[in-house]
Amino acid sequence: MLRVRLTLAFDGTRFHGWQIQETTGKQPRTVQGTVEEALKRIAGERIRVHGSGRTDAGVHALDQNAHFDAPESKANVPWQRALNALLPDDVRVTAAAAVAPDFHARHSSSSKTYAYSFWLNGRYVLPQRRHYTWRSGPLDVSAMEEASKRLVGTHDFAGFQNVGTEVGSTVRTVTDISRCVVDDLGATDHESVWRITADGFLKQMARNVFGLLAEVGRGKLAPRDADAVLATSERAPAPYPTAPARGLTLVRVRYE
Amino acid sequence: MLRVRLTLAFDGTRFHGWQIQETTGKQPRTVQGTVEEALKRIAGERIRVHGSGRTDAGVHALDQNAHFDAPESKANVPWQRALNALLPDDVRVTAAAAVAPDFHARHSSSSKTYAYSFWLNGRYVLPQRRHYTWRSGPLDVSAMEEASKRLVGTHDFAGFQNVGTEVGSTVRTVTDISRCVVDDLGATDHESVWRITADGFLKQMARNVFGLLAEVGRGKLAPRDADAVLATSERAPAPYPTAPARGLTLVRVRYE
Repeated sequence: MLRVRLTLAFDGTRFHGWQIQETTGKQPRTVQGTVEEALKRIAGERIRVHGSGRTDAGVHALDQNAHFDAPESKANVPWQRALNALLPDDVRVTAAAAVAPDFHARHSSSSKTYAYSFWLNGRYVLPQRRHYTWRSGPLDVSAMEEASKRLVGTHDFAGFQNVGTEVGSTVRTVTDISRCVVDDLGATDHESVWRITADGFLKQMARNVFGLLAEVGRGKLAPRDADAVLATSERAPAPYPTAPARGLTLVRVRYE
Repeated sequence: MLRVRLTLAFDGTRFHGWQIQETTGKQPRTVQGTVEEALKRIAGERIRVHGSGRTDAGVHALDQNAHFDAPESKANVPWQRALNALLPDDVRVTAAAAVAPDFHARHSSSSKTYAYSFWLNGRYVLPQRRHYTWRSGPLDVSAMEEASKRLVGTHDFAGFQNVGTEVGSTVRTVTDISRCVVDDLGATDHESVWRITADGFLKQMARNVFGLLAEVGRGKLAPRDADAVLATSERAPAPYPTAPARGLTLVRVRYE
């Protein structure tokens, strides 16, 4: 067996998220399922693809990482070219490389960075950006920065986790939340782009953090309200919204 | 009657161009037709919308301009808000204003600017940009600039006109062709964006100019080949491609 690491970019708009669904009905279109279909056509057998983590329906990626084990008979396949020739144009392999057999896309990752695009103009969203940004209206950046500082560090993020997935610990370490420029994001000057980096993310944690930051930026919540959310043990019903998936992009998965 | 000027942005991907088609069959989805449908719902009667010009299927706009005449009974309608509430999200009214009755979106325009995005990475196009750029591969900018200089000025552009529309004169004045940054375009750092400004454009003239520039940029044609195309009286069969519609955006229509 030969372990291959894939780096993938995708437009999440028409995908029902990363992960193949457990269902008895029609399988929804997922990124993982789409990549596995292409692999099967190349290898002639079913090959499981392991991602660095799930992304929700509508969430995009510039740098999702995944691995799979290819049979030795396929050792010389040029994976990037071969996969891109078969994949639909809303998912691309941006790099493919043989890796050590103990590389694991999820377990080996040390941190992830997500970016979020807020659309500042309250009157309309530019059609070309409608799948990639969320209309927040004008935002108070300094209030958002103050709230961000309260979230950076090692905390119990249970208050930012949507129900649905059982995890052991809800403690995560957020190393950075800041306004930024991501060259590959295609953001226009109508947008405010923020990023969050952590050693791991709970279910919808990134979207909940950006939902809270938007409310702070709009003046509907105070920066100190971030402390109150950190102090709660579950996602409370609606003191702030979960930011829509379309504004979120997985921009970096790091491996040590 | 009250004349209203509209400024429109649209994502051309799912439109069969600007103009309503003359057909006995099913009307394809056009921007003009979509705006007229929304106007009819507001005004209760059919109102013709006159654009500054046609755009091809797949071509985008940041700043298409149009006008229509509203009945006096609708003088107080807040057109931008009312239309945006009814229009699909791939077309937005970015401004609406009452204008003098002799304003005409096409006849009053003095010049137009189109932008074109070339995708420089030869291996893949980022999925998020697939509807907005054309994969040219690496380009020799200085060769393209030299070819551009040969096209700027008042020339007979018949050699850059695709057949299909009869026009009186094929002489046009191109005032600028240059590499540029357009803040609203959402171009990433993988792209080279160029613009062309002229007092008017023949059918597919902008796409043919950018198709020629791409061939020059790839070294398949020399800058002086631009002179040969200017010297011909019709679009010759394939010394260079017509650049695909998806890379082209109408970014500005000027009125004096």
